Amino acid sequence: MGSLENERSVTGWAAKDPSGILSPYTYTLRKTGPEDVCIKVLHCGICHTDIHQTKNHLGMSNYPMVPGHEVVGEVEEVGSNVTKFRVGEAVGVGCLVGCCRSCEPCNSSKEQYCNKRIWSYNDIYDDGQPTQGGFAPAMVVHQQFVVRIPEGLALEQAAPLLCAGVTVYSPLKHFGLIKSGVRGGILGLGGVGHMGVKIAKAVGHHVTVISSSDRKREEAMEHLGADEYLVSSDATQMQVATESLDYILDTIPVNHPLEPYISLLKVDGKLIITGVISTPMQFITPMLMLGRKSITGSFIGSMEETQEMLEFCKEKSVESKIEIVKMDYVNTAIERLEKNDVRYRFVVDVAGSKF
Amino acid sequence: MGSLENERSVTGWAAKDPSGILSPYTYTLRKTGPEDVCIKVLHCGICHTDIHQTKNHLGMSNYPMVPGHEVVGEVEEVGSNVTKFRVGEAVGVGCLVGCCRSCEPCNSSKEQYCNKRIWSYNDIYDDGQPTQGGFAPAMVVHQQFVVRIPEGLALEQAAPLLCAGVTVYSPLKHFGLIKSGVRGGILGLGGVGHMGVKIAKAVGHHVTVISSSDRKREEAMEHLGADEYLVSSDATQMQVATESLDYILDTIPVNHPLEPYISLLKVDGKLIITGVISTPMQFITPMLMLGRKSITGSFIGSMEETQEMLEFCKEKSVESKIEIVKMDYVNTAIERLEKNDVRYRFVVDVAGSKF
Repeated sequence: MGSLENERSVTGWAAKDPSGILSPYTYTLRKTGPEDVCIKVLHCGICHTDIHQTKNHLGMSNYPMVPGHEVVGEVEEVGSNVTKFRVGEAVGVGCLVGCCRSCEPCNSSKEQYCNKRIWSYNDIYDDGQPTQGGFAPAMVVHQQFVVRIPEGLALEQAAPLLCAGVTVYSPLKHFGLIKSGVRGGILGLGGVGHMGVKIAKAVGHHVTVISSSDRKREEAMEHLGADEYLVSSDATQMQVATESLDYILDTIPVNHPLEPYISLLKVDGKLIITGVISTPMQFITPMLMLGRKSITGSFIGSMEETQEMLEFCKEKSVESKIEIVKMDYVNTAIERLEKNDVRYRFVVDVAGSKF
Repeated sequence: MGSLENERSVTGWAAKDPSGILSPYTYTLRKTGPEDVCIKVLHCGICHTDIHQTKNHLGMSNYPMVPGHEVVGEVEEVGSNVTKFRVGEAVGVGCLVGCCRSCEPCNSSKEQYCNKRIWSYNDIYDDGQPTQGGFAPAMVVHQQFVVRIPEGLALEQAAPLLCAGVTVYSPLKHFGLIKSGVRGGILGLGGVGHMGVKIAKAVGHHVTVISSSDRKREEAMEHLGADEYLVSSDATQMQVATESLDYILDTIPVNHPLEPYISLLKVDGKLIITGVISTPMQFITPMLMLGRKSITGSFIGSMEETQEMLEFCKEKSVESKIEIVKMDYVNTAIERLEKNDVRYRFVVDVAGSKF
């Protein structure tokens, strides 16, 4: 266990170079400061972003790097100023562990948009040390970036909510879409997309899954509970669906034409992009203008929204679809994730793994 | 004068082919129906769109075509069901003269987004006849598409408000920006852009004109009253202005990179495009996502917003900057407009011209 007085060594699994292959790595956890929560990691989801980071797809990777930003654990120790959390409680940590606390986004509870945000890993913390993520036995995190996992929500289920879940929930909340009677489209059926279907359904939306082929129809309709399934390559189907959607959550992580999807939006409809795409996307201005449509993007969510989303998922019994693996399977899991060979999220049973 | 019982002949100025050259053309005005207002045209602005239409830039032009959609006139006659307007009153007509009256946009006072909207000219009216615009002695228009020019607003001044003015006012209204304390950017200083500066200033915004060179600094700051002038080719100025604007009204009518301008937006900022651009525009998804910024477009405004904007401009003494010309100067005016050689709008003194 950690101590307010002492740093300690832990062994997590880190990428050592752009091969992205994870292997054991021993590093130092800072001591639990007055505002910190020391967390014993129980579960950690594997997100596509972890691959981008470990393999240096964005050119900003520093090694060794312990990835993992969908972290669920148990409070081991709290700092003297921490009143919100008690030892033994189930808590979560997502993509961020710090922000500047003085800019406009920080002052208005949207710290995810702070330009000085500190990532859970592959970043430098206030103390000058590298941040390391959740594929490790423990993390020390400032209380502002810790959320409570509501009782009744299975811990392994909660892991993907901390990134994929809030990535869906935040834009729905921000754009005033947490209400029934809304027609939504979900583009892309990966980790974020499948949460999109589940959360949008739980909100009471009429949900259309849009896919390039008929291949995922059954899983979209029967397993995830979508209301409609639209094949984007079917011109007739697309024509029928013209101007039928209030929003589309676009989770596709690679470049794709936007026109077919913009045409599905009603007047004032929003195309909400959640995938980082490194090449330029295109659109035609009349398609936006003549329906006052928007192309926008959203990035995870605030801590406040994350907590709210967890409560919402508990209340509505929203469960992610996951495959639980051990730590020593992580490299295989990453390979499979790269091939979209997972329904829909790997979660590493960190506490149940040997380190 | 028109009559409820009779059609009548009028001679306006029409384009006869894609040369776009206007010359006298005699056609039939429908009789004033029960819901119609017959208007003696006094003034009519020349908008860039008129050039696109008369020269068939959009490939949808039908000839002969009497352009003109910034029409101010005097009520000559009203139909039996018209109670809103009286003979002799000053009224205006903008881009639209019809809509379906049954779709969602029509039912929610945003008829400008009705897919069956009928344009003031180069369109077919309910009676199967071509619509013809304001470069003519008279128009017969359904009362729904007629607005009252508030007393105290100079009639020739009001003309450009009916298109350029509401093109600015509508998005500010829709996106919740009719309030003080907002920082706005105006990109492009033509007919719409100059109204952008004037209306945004009248709303109480801090207004930055963004231009590719220093050339328009004096007119932006001194004649139009902008608060700041930003040269987009000056990297230092642009860097200083990063994330400083709540919105940018992008009135540039030709393709241009968006990244430099998106970077000027604050978190949740909006790039509002008002120019029809026929080639695809580009953007990079992280620029939107990491600030929840939007690229959107807006198209004129509703009849309700048009009336409200006229009252606003009267109350705030917003005046457009215009050059008044006679009808027989129209072809020269169009040539000059194509070269941006006008500050900022030509208005044809229709009633004072020989036809």
